[in-house]
Amino acid sequence: MKRITLHPSGPECSPVASGVWRMEEWDHSPRDTIEWIETCLEAGITTFDHADVYGQYTTESRFGQALKLSPSLRQKIELVSKCDVCITCENRPENHINHYNTSPEYIRQSVERSLRNLSTDHLDLLLLHRPDPLMNADHTAGVLAELQTEGKIKHIGVSNFTPSQVSLLQSRLDTPLVTNQVECSLLHTEPLFDGTFDQAQEIRSRPMVWSPFAGGRLFAGTGERSRRVKEAIMPLKEKYSATAGQIALAWLLALPCKPQPVIGTGKTDRIREAAGAVAIELDRQDWFTLLVASQGHPVP
Amino acid sequence: MKRITLHPSGPECSPVASGVWRMEEWDHSPRDTIEWIETCLEAGITTFDHADVYGQYTTESRFGQALKLSPSLRQKIELVSKCDVCITCENRPENHINHYNTSPEYIRQSVERSLRNLSTDHLDLLLLHRPDPLMNADHTAGVLAELQTEGKIKHIGVSNFTPSQVSLLQSRLDTPLVTNQVECSLLHTEPLFDGTFDQAQEIRSRPMVWSPFAGGRLFAGTGERSRRVKEAIMPLKEKYSATAGQIALAWLLALPCKPQPVIGTGKTDRIREAAGAVAIELDRQDWFTLLVASQGHPVP
Amino acid sequence: MKRITLHPSGPECSPVASGVWRMEEWDHSPRDTIEWIETCLEAGITTFDHADVYGQYTTESRFGQALKLSPSLRQKIELVSKCDVCITCENRPENHINHYNTSPEYIRQSVERSLRNLSTDHLDLLLLHRPDPLMNADHTAGVLAELQTEGKIKHIGVSNFTPSQVSLLQSRLDTPLVTNQVECSLLHTEPLFDGTFDQAQEIRSRPMVWSPFAGGRLFAGTGERSRRVKEAIMPLKEKYSATAGQIALAWLLALPCKPQPVIGTGKTDRIREAAGAVAIELDRQDWFTLLVASQGHPVP
Repeated sequence: MKRITLHPSGPECSPVASGVWRMEEWDHSPRDTIEWIETCLEAGITTFDHADVYGQYTTESRFGQALKLSPSLRQKIELVSKCDVCITCENRPENHINHYNTSPEYIRQSVERSLRNLSTDHLDLLLLHRPDPLMNADHTAGVLAELQTEGKIKHIGVSNFTPSQVSLLQSRLDTPLVTNQVECSLLHTEPLFDGTFDQAQEIRSRPMVWSPFAGGRLFAGTGERSRRVKEAIMPLKEKYSATAGQIALAWLLALPCKPQPVIGTGKTDRIREAAGAVAIELDRQDWFTLLVASQGHPVP
Repeated sequence: MKRITLHPSGPECSPVASGVWRMEEWDHSPRDTIEWIETCLEAGITTFDHADVYGQYTTESRFGQALKLSPSLRQKIELVSKCDVCITCENRPENHINHYNTSPEYIRQSVERSLRNLSTDHLDLLLLHRPDPLMNADHTAGVLAELQTEGKIKHIGVSNFTPSQVSLLQSRLDTPLVTNQVECSLLHTEPLFDGTFDQAQEIRSRPMVWSPFAGGRLFAGTGERSRRVKEAIMPLKEKYSATAGQIALAWLLALPCKPQPVIGTGKTDRIREAAGAVAIELDRQDWFTLLVASQGHPVP
Repeated sequence: MKRITLHPSGPECSPVASGVWRMEEWDHSPRDTIEWIETCLEAGITTFDHADVYGQYTTESRFGQALKLSPSLRQKIELVSKCDVCITCENRPENHINHYNTSPEYIRQSVERSLRNLSTDHLDLLLLHRPDPLMNADHTAGVLAELQTEGKIKHIGVSNFTPSQVSLLQSRLDTPLVTNQVECSLLHTEPLFDGTFDQAQEIRSRPMVWSPFAGGRLFAGTGERSRRVKEAIMPLKEKYSATAGQIALAWLLALPCKPQPVIGTGKTDRIREAAGAVAIELDRQDWFTLLVASQGHPVP
């Protein structure tokens, strides 16, 4: 499978990423995790999307145990992780309310913990997980630049940021924000119209996209909207010799901001299926047929 | 009538433009069209606003037949046209859903067809008709720049774009987007408040304004809002010795982004009426009286 | 009390400002006003927030009479005033509808009248009070720059502007807009999320904040939202040895755009109370507890 770069300055990635936010549910042994990583690699997926908070702050070390057992894997993959989300849970008794923390002390502590948990000396990409209304951009950019200089993080990005939040943080950094990871799917088209993807294309920073299947609602959903989208996908499956999931991914991959969808599956066939979507080029009118089905009205 | 420039770099235009989106309904012979153009010119209106799609892709050639019959007209007018809207109709059997197309191939093909249909070797201004979520700004800007270099289009603009869409396309062009043609009227005041006209003024790109009479609802409308506006216009007719339509246009012409209203009438007296609005300078308090009538509440 | 600068270029101010929009109700004699000013100064509050329109255009001269009686006060304070709001009232028989006026003639006339009324030769800061849809940014910036060159206003700012309005006016000025005074409180959190405070932080222009107690609704309000906020403040009063009002101000002062709250009280104890809030540093989780109480749902 071809490679992409999220931003002209890097990092080089696979066109689809594997996210581990549901890894806890897969009940993998370290050996199972190694096998799963290798399945991804065979399918051409080399980018792994983490966050410190996944699995209530346990998923990074689960993944790290696999890397420790099979250290050669590290050089074959890109590790993305995130910080700043602080939730109340057993592993964080100090938290008494869900909140965000973009203070330099917290970010440094969080990144260094992620490195230890992942059994690695660097993240290929660190994202601020959620916009923090208390973010002092000078302070936050300062620690991000330091961690980059120290080689602990190779690239910097954000997640769930509005265009003005991206602009603010970028104004304090000498290196580019290489991505803004946001939710997007045929059931969540806001970033196409609210300026998020316009900005992404303008600054040549490819979005990563979470929930590309709308958390499963795209196929299992019962509402009017998902019913319309499912029906519109139907005839395209045969035309493109593709699954519904592949059509949904191909719809995202056709966007001119060139997003990298993050899939979240532990299943071998689903991984291969997702990787296969990269080769599909949807016809423009088919793309609009799906948009119109999602919106429920013709384009103006 | 005085002349305006849409942008410091051009083009020079009349302060009001004549739009032809309803020309099919006028049932003009080529001679009638010549007469109508001359009526516009006599009234000082030299800018003619087309789109490939008007009349289901037939209006450009209707207009072009008149230009062929009276070739000297071409040098007296500015031709604006638009592309990228693809509708399903007999003349476009290849379209099976209404959509947009900003691909280089399509834009080139569309502009060259517009030139043939209009019997001209250049457009004074080409607009992208609608924002296309699939617009690859590099590719689209590339073909626009090429067409400009080839002399086929003198200036480039857009229509119905949001500020972030303008910013994106402008970032890839070496020449300015000279206008963003948007809907605005006393019944559609959004561009005054959503950043559209702030951006227009900031980049010194005068908007063209479509539906300046809200498609007739301003006078014939039965809703609360149009009733309020009609009542507020009433006393101003006498004060300014003006028609209701002229007051409505003068309200737009007073805006500091200095829009060029596009009227859409085939009737001689309506053309002269519109041209006459340019001389009216609404008093500031009268302007606010109309805004308040439109909004239905005092300013904060 | 420590000093702040609204913008790196100035002006230097107190961290909390005293606003006089309710001064008419206080029924102060000139001597009372002097005493009130001195109470503010003793509490460390040196910035006084005026607008020509307060008290139906009478409050500036009421304040000015006090300055005339005690001229040495002028050098101890910063005078902020505003212009462009034109209301219908006895003192402005020429107004027949509430409106805005940012024309050069009006702004000059208004500022010169403010100087006379306030018995001063300069304003430390002039704000445009409300965004005027008829603002011609070239003209408005022109007169503001002139008044600054003449020494009549030391700094320029705006109030109630959107980010695109700030960007437009700034594009025509060689000196920075040092503040955008907007409404913000635990019952009005929009500026945290709509780009207003992102822009403020990006351009290093600290907002002034009006209605920091939501016009009293924060304490006296009966709605669900103010009830939730009041309950969330309760346990923090003891923790920080602070009043509810101080907690509400500390919540604002914690924002990374570093706003200057404008309080509007004539009462000595309330002035001291507000000044005391500056020393309180809310814990991050306490800050989020208040945000969540205001929003009525956890952070995403």
